[in-house]
Amino acid sequence: MAQPEIHNGGAEKAEVVVSFTAVKPQLVVEAPKASEAVQFYKEAFGAVETGRTTHPKRKAEQELPQIISAQLQLAGSTILVSDLADDSAPVKGVGSGLSLCLETQDVEAAVAKAVAAGAVAEGEIAESDGACCGGRVGKVKDPYGFVWMICSPSAAAAAAKCGDAGVEA
Amino acid sequence: MAQPEIHNGGAEKAEVVVSFTAVKPQLVVEAPKASEAVQFYKEAFGAVETGRTTHPKRKAEQELPQIISAQLQLAGSTILVSDLADDSAPVKGVGSGLSLCLETQDVEAAVAKAVAAGAVAEGEIAESDGACCGGRVGKVKDPYGFVWMICSPSAAAAAAKCGDAGVEA
Repeated sequence: MAQPEIHNGGAEKAEVVVSFTAVKPQLVVEAPKASEAVQFYKEAFGAVETGRTTHPKRKAEQELPQIISAQLQLAGSTILVSDLADDSAPVKGVGSGLSLCLETQDVEAAVAKAVAAGAVAEGEIAESDGACCGGRVGKVKDPYGFVWMICSPSAAAAAAKCGDAGVEA
Repeated sequence: MAQPEIHNGGAEKAEVVVSFTAVKPQLVVEAPKASEAVQFYKEAFGAVETGRTTHPKRKAEQELPQIISAQLQLAGSTILVSDLADDSAPVKGVGSGLSLCLETQDVEAAVAKAVAAGAVAEGEIAESDGACCGGRVGKVKDPYGFVWMICSPSAAAAAAKCGDAGVEA
């Protein structure tokens, strides 16, 4: 993106340039299931937990601490898993639907592993219509209600990627 | 992740190692609003469209082609925007909530820009409880119903990142 010229001391705001450094899907689950959900994402997708922020006060001794956010690394992205806070309204019914595409070379094995960990396969693995990655796609719903489209890159995309020195936005 | 030993010809399946190459949030909107949504994400967040797959058949001459998937680059991630297909059930009510955290150094400007493009701010910009990125956070709902948490990295995270040669999962 081209940077606009800087006008020193200029009060005019022409085009505001805002840059973003990361997009992190945040999965908010019914409390206190975030801990269990993190375990599921480790088993199902090989996610690696890199940090966890918990609420300093728990209600009772026996209760699990509320997870404000657990940070998971998955396929080069950060995924956040949180317990729904008591005082926040559930973030339900977002648009027509937000799901996560998860790209892999081995859709069958990935779906099987997710199902073994507790996800439910929805429909058969099939050739993609191009909505997700372009190759084959299998849809699973995880135990927390989130939909994952497990898909392989299209042959064309895979070839393009191999000849690519690196794309940075 | 450690690779398990390969047992040639072994029929046993111990631990299936599946690797993933990308996580791509897919935003499915009511047809035919995907084209308009793509325009919104460009204006609001500076997303760059890198590809678009449309359905080969449109119903009438006047109708917009159904977008199977538009690929947008945003903060190093790929975001997919799709028209909801006629034959698919809306992917509503996923879990307690899936939203997208968008990390930036300038939360105020980013929220203002998103609102100028048509998003609705929910609540005030405030110090984060750590759910998202750790710094300040503003919440906006876009015209398609998706919730974006616009947040700044925590001071600690920013410092750690600067001293980091690069983290790859």
